[in-house]
Amino acid sequence: MRKTAVRLRARPSGLPQVSDWAIRKEDVTPPAEGQVLVKARYVSVSPSLRNQMEAGGAYLPPLQIGDVARARGVGEVLESRSPDFAPGDHVEGPLGTQSHFTGPPAGLMKVDPSVAPLSRYLGALGMTGFTAYFGLLDIGRPEPGETVVVSAAAGAVGSVAGQIARLKGCRVIGVAGGPAKCAHVVDELRFDACIDHYDGRLSERLSELAPDGVHVYFDNVGGEVLDAALLNLALRARIPLCGGVAHYNSVGQLGLRNHLKLLETRSRIEGFSVYDFAPRYPEARDALAGWLADGSLVTREHVVEGLEQFPEALRLLFGGAQLGKLMVKV
Amino acid sequence: MRKTAVRLRARPSGLPQVSDWAIRKEDVTPPAEGQVLVKARYVSVSPSLRNQMEAGGAYLPPLQIGDVARARGVGEVLESRSPDFAPGDHVEGPLGTQSHFTGPPAGLMKVDPSVAPLSRYLGALGMTGFTAYFGLLDIGRPEPGETVVVSAAAGAVGSVAGQIARLKGCRVIGVAGGPAKCAHVVDELRFDACIDHYDGRLSERLSELAPDGVHVYFDNVGGEVLDAALLNLALRARIPLCGGVAHYNSVGQLGLRNHLKLLETRSRIEGFSVYDFAPRYPEARDALAGWLADGSLVTREHVVEGLEQFPEALRLLFGGAQLGKLMVKV
Repeated sequence: MRKTAVRLRARPSGLPQVSDWAIRKEDVTPPAEGQVLVKARYVSVSPSLRNQMEAGGAYLPPLQIGDVARARGVGEVLESRSPDFAPGDHVEGPLGTQSHFTGPPAGLMKVDPSVAPLSRYLGALGMTGFTAYFGLLDIGRPEPGETVVVSAAAGAVGSVAGQIARLKGCRVIGVAGGPAKCAHVVDELRFDACIDHYDGRLSERLSELAPDGVHVYFDNVGGEVLDAALLNLALRARIPLCGGVAHYNSVGQLGLRNHLKLLETRSRIEGFSVYDFAPRYPEARDALAGWLADGSLVTREHVVEGLEQFPEALRLLFGGAQLGKLMVKV
Repeated sequence: MRKTAVRLRARPSGLPQVSDWAIRKEDVTPPAEGQVLVKARYVSVSPSLRNQMEAGGAYLPPLQIGDVARARGVGEVLESRSPDFAPGDHVEGPLGTQSHFTGPPAGLMKVDPSVAPLSRYLGALGMTGFTAYFGLLDIGRPEPGETVVVSAAAGAVGSVAGQIARLKGCRVIGVAGGPAKCAHVVDELRFDACIDHYDGRLSERLSELAPDGVHVYFDNVGGEVLDAALLNLALRARIPLCGGVAHYNSVGQLGLRNHLKLLETRSRIEGFSVYDFAPRYPEARDALAGWLADGSLVTREHVVEGLEQFPEALRLLFGGAQLGKLMVKV
């Protein structure tokens, strides 16, 4: 049996190029004792991959040239030599950017395609949704009536985080790029307002929309949006630090100018990883599935056809054109 | 009765000038019903004053031109029309930069000059020591065996914070300016090591001295020291944000370059104010007095003679020449 694999060919400077990746046809390795063979149906395209493409300083170990990129995926077990999985099981886990995964089933979770479409387990019912859920609720700790600001509000994690804040009784302001995304955030995701960051005047718009200050800023981008949020913090505000898309492709890092506002307002900025919350994934999945079922949470998926389109899809992610969770269909 | 008052004459750009202040001889206002008249003995010179000299954006309301600067002081009650205080009582509180304070006794605390010299209540047994105590223990939460880094380690707050960390069983690395301060930090304050920040190579020195990473960075300065600490954080590190002396006098603010390390290491930076811990001041005072009494905590006070020297003393504070707590004797 043959498979398709996407392997790192060159380290990027700035925005990743299509030529940074090699698409390879390879033999599928049969599973050894204790291992499984999974055929991937969808592979996630996530901003965290950008960091792994660098030679050093990543929060996951950097990819080596020639490596299959780390990526979550959902698929179906074709062969199993593990007692925990059987052929026909559907699973979500770190399958990598390839059509077939062979290896130990560590980190694989069974998912039920009769409850939700498989792709949903890469979006709102997977790490994307869990990241929003724990980042907002456990790190941000919003109280009803507080003002919550979410950047990359039309994106995979931001769209879910902002809606959870709304469901918890908060006033929610999104920040997104361009009028189409802002309309989506307000009309479909039902945020109270959305600021187009291409308009500039971020800090002024925030102070108009949040005259009593920002209690929680869910940060997916860093850069000037974070600086504007810092200028508008309420007392004892909380900033869950979820990402820094504005920095990932910048060759010289942007400087943050207003961190002393944390001192003035006695506020906190805190990085987190969804993987630290693994024991509580069932809690998050139950809550998110309930909100999806009753229509109080809506999600978008942006599906690109074909694993060979993965390098282009990664560029799309940073180009800011897509709404919701980006993935490739294998 | 006449008094001396130090009033703001002009807002500074960069380092405050002596000419930014007016020294005035004025009539003492007699206390009204409920008020007290206190003769100040020592007035604190604190970096937080720099922020109040600005027209906007302070965490305390900005001073107006002509205002007596806010400052803690210790002194003796001369007259009292409050049932809570009597002539002869010694008190610590927000007396301002003046020889005599007339007003309501809100915020005044009685202190006992037989337990410690009066000046100590502006240093280790006052807000200085309490800031170190709560910032390190409640915000930094160091565990025995962890590595704690303290900037402005020879300064009023840093010198106490680092010694508390040592007393809690941590490995303590100071950062201070120049070989004389570094020798003081290691030899007298008994930190495990001290880095001279004038030497440069901050991040390299930190990684040599803390190969397993920095668990707590008690930040008094911001700027490049904070950036270097961010590059060397252990997983789940904590940064109590106590001050930003590197920024206070800079006209264009310095940018912080490495905040995404908080994400990579799942770490936290948190501003705090000692005033939020007011109900627990007795706990801090008891602990600090115990350590002072048994010699495990040593402190330095730098006393400048004469209130009219206050403007020069404030420049001394930012010039970095003094050790320990800076104050003027009235």
